[in-house]
Amino acid sequence: MGFELPKYIEPNFEQEFLKSAPNVKTEEVVKEGVAPENYHGTTIFPEYFKIDGKWVLAKESRMDSVVVVKDNNEVEVKEFRNLKVGEKVVVGRTEDASEGIYVYNGGFVGEEEIDETFAFRSGRSRETAYSKDYDDLYEVLRREKEHGYIVWVLGPAAVFDKDAREAMAALIDNGYVHAFLGGNAVATHDLEAATIGTALGQDIYTQKSMKDGHYNHLDLLNKARRAGSIERLIEEENITDGIIHACVKNDVPIVLGGSIRDDGPLPIVISDVYKAQNEMRKHTRKATTVICLATQLHSIATGNMTPSYTVVNGEVRPVFIYSVDVSEFAVNKLRDRGTLEVKTIVTNVQDFLVNLKNNLTK
Amino acid sequence: MGFELPKYIEPNFEQEFLKSAPNVKTEEVVKEGVAPENYHGTTIFPEYFKIDGKWVLAKESRMDSVVVVKDNNEVEVKEFRNLKVGEKVVVGRTEDASEGIYVYNGGFVGEEEIDETFAFRSGRSRETAYSKDYDDLYEVLRREKEHGYIVWVLGPAAVFDKDAREAMAALIDNGYVHAFLGGNAVATHDLEAATIGTALGQDIYTQKSMKDGHYNHLDLLNKARRAGSIERLIEEENITDGIIHACVKNDVPIVLGGSIRDDGPLPIVISDVYKAQNEMRKHTRKATTVICLATQLHSIATGNMTPSYTVVNGEVRPVFIYSVDVSEFAVNKLRDRGTLEVKTIVTNVQDFLVNLKNNLTK
Amino acid sequence: MGFELPKYIEPNFEQEFLKSAPNVKTEEVVKEGVAPENYHGTTIFPEYFKIDGKWVLAKESRMDSVVVVKDNNEVEVKEFRNLKVGEKVVVGRTEDASEGIYVYNGGFVGEEEIDETFAFRSGRSRETAYSKDYDDLYEVLRREKEHGYIVWVLGPAAVFDKDAREAMAALIDNGYVHAFLGGNAVATHDLEAATIGTALGQDIYTQKSMKDGHYNHLDLLNKARRAGSIERLIEEENITDGIIHACVKNDVPIVLGGSIRDDGPLPIVISDVYKAQNEMRKHTRKATTVICLATQLHSIATGNMTPSYTVVNGEVRPVFIYSVDVSEFAVNKLRDRGTLEVKTIVTNVQDFLVNLKNNLTK
Amino acid sequence: MGFELPKYIEPNFEQEFLKSAPNVKTEEVVKEGVAPENYHGTTIFPEYFKIDGKWVLAKESRMDSVVVVKDNNEVEVKEFRNLKVGEKVVVGRTEDASEGIYVYNGGFVGEEEIDETFAFRSGRSRETAYSKDYDDLYEVLRREKEHGYIVWVLGPAAVFDKDAREAMAALIDNGYVHAFLGGNAVATHDLEAATIGTALGQDIYTQKSMKDGHYNHLDLLNKARRAGSIERLIEEENITDGIIHACVKNDVPIVLGGSIRDDGPLPIVISDVYKAQNEMRKHTRKATTVICLATQLHSIATGNMTPSYTVVNGEVRPVFIYSVDVSEFAVNKLRDRGTLEVKTIVTNVQDFLVNLKNNLTK
Repeated sequence: MGFELPKYIEPNFEQEFLKSAPNVKTEEVVKEGVAPENYHGTTIFPEYFKIDGKWVLAKESRMDSVVVVKDNNEVEVKEFRNLKVGEKVVVGRTEDASEGIYVYNGGFVGEEEIDETFAFRSGRSRETAYSKDYDDLYEVLRREKEHGYIVWVLGPAAVFDKDAREAMAALIDNGYVHAFLGGNAVATHDLEAATIGTALGQDIYTQKSMKDGHYNHLDLLNKARRAGSIERLIEEENITDGIIHACVKNDVPIVLGGSIRDDGPLPIVISDVYKAQNEMRKHTRKATTVICLATQLHSIATGNMTPSYTVVNGEVRPVFIYSVDVSEFAVNKLRDRGTLEVKTIVTNVQDFLVNLKNNLTK
Repeated sequence: MGFELPKYIEPNFEQEFLKSAPNVKTEEVVKEGVAPENYHGTTIFPEYFKIDGKWVLAKESRMDSVVVVKDNNEVEVKEFRNLKVGEKVVVGRTEDASEGIYVYNGGFVGEEEIDETFAFRSGRSRETAYSKDYDDLYEVLRREKEHGYIVWVLGPAAVFDKDAREAMAALIDNGYVHAFLGGNAVATHDLEAATIGTALGQDIYTQKSMKDGHYNHLDLLNKARRAGSIERLIEEENITDGIIHACVKNDVPIVLGGSIRDDGPLPIVISDVYKAQNEMRKHTRKATTVICLATQLHSIATGNMTPSYTVVNGEVRPVFIYSVDVSEFAVNKLRDRGTLEVKTIVTNVQDFLVNLKNNLTK
Repeated sequence: MGFELPKYIEPNFEQEFLKSAPNVKTEEVVKEGVAPENYHGTTIFPEYFKIDGKWVLAKESRMDSVVVVKDNNEVEVKEFRNLKVGEKVVVGRTEDASEGIYVYNGGFVGEEEIDETFAFRSGRSRETAYSKDYDDLYEVLRREKEHGYIVWVLGPAAVFDKDAREAMAALIDNGYVHAFLGGNAVATHDLEAATIGTALGQDIYTQKSMKDGHYNHLDLLNKARRAGSIERLIEEENITDGIIHACVKNDVPIVLGGSIRDDGPLPIVISDVYKAQNEMRKHTRKATTVICLATQLHSIATGNMTPSYTVVNGEVRPVFIYSVDVSEFAVNKLRDRGTLEVKTIVTNVQDFLVNLKNNLTK
Repeated sequence: MGFELPKYIEPNFEQEFLKSAPNVKTEEVVKEGVAPENYHGTTIFPEYFKIDGKWVLAKESRMDSVVVVKDNNEVEVKEFRNLKVGEKVVVGRTEDASEGIYVYNGGFVGEEEIDETFAFRSGRSRETAYSKDYDDLYEVLRREKEHGYIVWVLGPAAVFDKDAREAMAALIDNGYVHAFLGGNAVATHDLEAATIGTALGQDIYTQKSMKDGHYNHLDLLNKARRAGSIERLIEEENITDGIIHACVKNDVPIVLGGSIRDDGPLPIVISDVYKAQNEMRKHTRKATTVICLATQLHSIATGNMTPSYTVVNGEVRPVFIYSVDVSEFAVNKLRDRGTLEVKTIVTNVQDFLVNLKNNLTK
């Protein structure tokens, strides 16, 4: 009966253990990119820090990072490598307020209903019933299209097939994509398809291997490098379809992180992976829903930097994370690495994308 | 532009090597179920045997079996275990007519186009482009619905999800299923869903585990055994949906072969696996298209007894075999075991069935 | 040091809820193979039934079956299909003694240590550390060799490789195998290797495909069927190596259950799968350790009929179950289907067998 | 007996088509990192280029790159991104000498025996017989230890288990490792094990999850970053075991390429992935054997830059590439992406490493 966003209930700060809790302690960074010994490491859950007698929520959080208290008594969650000398890092490894650190897991009202709908957790496999997950996802996306920030993370499999590639472009055209994260391969093969009709030399519809097709992606990369930018390449090659084209046309930001297996790369690719992480996190900071398709590397990377909640217009709300892959091991790995709230769907992403297009666009 | 059935060109029997070939030799069976030493073993391809100077095609063939010459000079392809004392078995292990045995692989006109459309063979995986396979399959099924004999082989995964189960029932209702082969599990869980809404105790839509849900399939089996037949059970329990119900309603024959992992079993299940093979083969003898979903055991069993061609109204035509599973290993195994002509699709069968329903029924 | 069998502490029957519990109720079977409506279904755990004021433990139990109270006030756990008219079946679906049925999970002393050693349960995958599992297994097998009953369940992959096949034969020769369960394929290919050196036509050492190798297993099957028994075949073909040979030589019982994908079958194969279940259960009734390798069908079948405990010389002890396969899905499926106590190892069974041989035989 | 390195027979340059072939054409690079339109792309096979009437072999080749003719008439195989303005790039897309480019596939004597031993190519899976592959590999490594350059590529799974980690360290100590390529994770978890005994917080022997264990790898990374180098860390933390320790002790070069999923990273990690590629290729240029374990990303990256042959002391010889993973898809992907000569083994790398240690060290 329509999608209802789970409501967040703040901790009751009048509880004695929270009222009597001390302020957090901090220690200063003395070496760039290195935290003090007893730093507090973040989780994916809402965390509050007592500063000057007030409990302050970490916004735009992420796990496995540290907490810097700023001059205005706000906190910032930063990766170790981004720490600057002199910054004040929260120390202490308790989570129960006894050191001024309170990790608050369970603030979403109707947690039980949510549990069933959005947080089913154990034993998901090829034999799980996915009908309701699809139905829920359609509702989520229809809402988030207007009121959220939907981040997509794609592996190359999403562009190896004609229908899937068209479906993804349609989703972009219809406003269901607010940021597109990926690597050199997905963009290269999408542009290869746009210019030559193949991916890795194989026709994306007929499956026919083209003569000298192993040159196709190299040719595309060489042209892109000569053009100097994706936008320029689209112009020069008269590209009119595909995922990259749809992103550029609709002003959807693209972040492509480099990897050691890249050919080329495309001019847009960020060669320093930690700079790439910084760019990716600009989007996961805002994300309300994240959908990861067929890429273990990029899914885990994105999962690592996505918290279970976010603050929109002053209200705390959950972040929904989906991971879709044909391999149980791949989708589960995201959870094993700490992204506990992920909802996994085991199927070929081609079918997944076509399903979404059929149900969300007309 | 519409589906065109590949045309079969008979061998040119005027070729010298065929004209001058000797008649086949046979030897008599002396022990029930045992072939003479030098028996000829069949393949999946069209095979001709020279008898009394004439080349006779084996109809209703299957691989790994032997060839019996009958009194009317027809040949019958029989499993070893079904040989009777006194039957005349073709001997000789050549395939080039030199012993009167001619294995003829390549008689379908436009083999090249077929190759691309229906026989793409190497390296199919989750990264293969499946758009055209789907499009081809839709055309095949629309044609075979009227002019062919479509055999479905289903594992339990097909009924674990509400949308998939409904899609399969809709395909049956719309005439796309001429025989249904499976095991005790797929039927049991389909009937569990029909009566209690769960599969193995888990709701097939909400995924919720029901209290005492591990009793559900046992209760269903016990009721079925008391009823004594599927038809009776449907009546007693007022079953009105699902795959088994659709088969019974539409007079689609059901063959369920037993296995050592069965609970129950349902009264319809055939406990002797070689009798079950005989019943299954009654349908693969007639099959023009075979679709195997999410069951390695039943898919290989069915693949073993399905030839690459069949004779319909005196005309030789290809048999199309599809194997759909989320695991590359599972779909490839069918080929590894000799069913060379199989077309594999790597995806979750839930999405596969919903795709078919969306495109083939209204 | 060394392996210590976890000790079982009986329930304290002086507890009030057990003392005051009523006797179980039973209902008579009125139709062969059908249980009364409200039958009690068994689990894998120790279950006690109050009969004539005394708590009686079910010995030789198995899950998903029913409990028959016999004239001597003992109980027997029987499959539904084996129920005879007039037998008294325990009814009631509680487990807390309130209906005279008490399911007692947790009687093994040092459960915590056991938990760590033999019952680690979540998220086992290719990335789990298996060193200690191997070390524990070596100790278990050294002990069980003398004092237990070790049941092996093998798929054909165990005989496709020379070193693995030799390792398995060495384990049989050295007394580590008390019963061997499998299907037609594992035995056929073992005997194919023994007589021709191939499995499915491929040399088990050099991997070379032999000319006309697809005849090999058919020839072997035909010879076996002519011989009429495994023992006779071994004599006639002078078979001197392999798993079947080792079993016959060492009087290790072999149970081969038929399946719909069998060629042949070998004369020893049981064609009725429910009779095969009965034969398999004769061994799981006695089993103290069960090791399942590379066969989903036979592993689940065996797991279904293996309880978590057994009674040896009047003492209750745990049954250890191992499932080894290269696929997480395959090993986990055993747990998903209810065999909760299974310990899974994700690897190629070739390496697993060679490891065991290296550590257990000299 | 024993291992015989396949001998390479140069093309017979007296053949007319080679004698009469024209010199190669080249075009100059006009934009940094961009090749001329009609560039020749390299394969993994030996390629000869006619320059000033002489056929010149590309040494230290790799696929998907371009060929630069240098002033001394030698050729260099360079990645597109490394092209400098003014460099002369070979153009032409034929391989048959007609444009002065000759791709020579098949120069290794006894190719047929090699085919069986080192280049078996189709359908390798969990069911392939690996005994002989292991035997061959032992011989290869014993020889290459003295006369070759063995490059190892490791994913984190290699250090998650005690026995596997010790086995790998023993192989390093015994001279079987000449270079070690990997990412941040494998090194981090190896050092986590060296200092705390866990990997990702789980004991690498007992599998027990340590309290607050999710801090372990972060603590290790923070310490390493404070130490400023691996060597310093080893000193400060008194690290005496593991893979990284063994490499440092034995002066085995380590190249760790960064990735977007890294925490930390360790100070040794190269953050720019294309610089990382350059460093990795320094080793694949010299490699005679490459062994890739349980890392799809690094295996494909390394495979991409490893040719099928190398030149040692003026002699052309094959490069042996092994890829070991529990997933058929992972090992096959290396081939699908063009590394055609790879030999794949489907198993858990823990067992693989222990096997190697048992057979190669004492």
